[in-house]
Amino acid sequence: MTTDARRRGPYAKTAERRHQILDAALQVFAAHGYRAGSMREVARTADMSLSNLMHHFRTKEDLLLALLRRRDDDSPGQRTGTHDLVADILSQARWNQTKPDLIALYAVLSAESVTDGHPGRDYFIERFVTVRRGFEEEFGKLRDAGRLRPGVDPHMVAGCITALWDGIQLQWLLQPDQINVVAYLEAFLDLVTLPPDTAFIADPGC
Amino acid sequence: MTTDARRRGPYAKTAERRHQILDAALQVFAAHGYRAGSMREVARTADMSLSNLMHHFRTKEDLLLALLRRRDDDSPGQRTGTHDLVADILSQARWNQTKPDLIALYAVLSAESVTDGHPGRDYFIERFVTVRRGFEEEFGKLRDAGRLRPGVDPHMVAGCITALWDGIQLQWLLQPDQINVVAYLEAFLDLVTLPPDTAFIADPGC
Repeated sequence: MTTDARRRGPYAKTAERRHQILDAALQVFAAHGYRAGSMREVARTADMSLSNLMHHFRTKEDLLLALLRRRDDDSPGQRTGTHDLVADILSQARWNQTKPDLIALYAVLSAESVTDGHPGRDYFIERFVTVRRGFEEEFGKLRDAGRLRPGVDPHMVAGCITALWDGIQLQWLLQPDQINVVAYLEAFLDLVTLPPDTAFIADPGC
Repeated sequence: MTTDARRRGPYAKTAERRHQILDAALQVFAAHGYRAGSMREVARTADMSLSNLMHHFRTKEDLLLALLRRRDDDSPGQRTGTHDLVADILSQARWNQTKPDLIALYAVLSAESVTDGHPGRDYFIERFVTVRRGFEEEFGKLRDAGRLRPGVDPHMVAGCITALWDGIQLQWLLQPDQINVVAYLEAFLDLVTLPPDTAFIADPGC
């Protein structure tokens, strides 16, 4: 009850308003990119005045960074895990396909971030480092479980799958009916991993 | 001699001027993206008046498309070929590393092309279709020569390498000292191909 009361209070309103603004920013930046998307258009899309918007996000840069952080929080891959790397990757890829706006936003902003003085640059560098490191750890565990194809290096596979995933999602955004992201990721994972029973056969002493 | 005389004539001047403008457009679009880059800034960078620029390229859209077409003409992979797919890919990747501006331009524009009504969209769809088809043919030849790992599908590998290449170049643009594009491509190609001598052993009847 106390919690409910609190959630209806001014903090909840602020949080709700911020969410609303971020939804609008997602639409605007996914449609035009960050540089060409304006605060004025975000305000219009969120159905509020520019000054009201700027009360919540002082600059377009603040808005961008909040939006990128929310993307990470929303993604199911960060929250749950079946402890099966291959299944987790494919399930995240399936979820992404239900969010073309979000994936477009990510594709546009990550590429735009290489341009001069882009405020998202540090975020994306950090993000790629973290994602690659996470995959390297996970593929390392697969190798230790005898499920990585012999000679496959977890470090290299981590970079490859991060890159492949971004690249194939871009092709899917352009041709959603032609490109099956999950099938490409699966084909790649088939190349680098061994099925569980093969791993068992490969190490019969266990 | 006749050719030389012609090249000094008005057509040559126009061609030279267009090249100069495209060089400027490359700088501007690679630094800011297409949407946020302005014709005025391209003119300033090319050291000419806006009306003079617009005499050569009537719209920013014309300029973008001419720039994308020139990128394809300039790339050595389109011109030469050692008839060794793996060597060709790695040599093109090495050449790309000497042209970070061009690669940034391509990364930014291809991602931006997924946004609403972007004039580069058809170009990039067409380009991805062509690139994938080209790779599929080449990997098909490798398979016929017994140099593709058994079970590897040329169609899937074609999509994977196209995606991986774009994705890893983006990571390289953000961290040029950390990401070795050639090494990642090589690791992937090692996964899908067999070395020539293995192929010979695998098919001793030939």
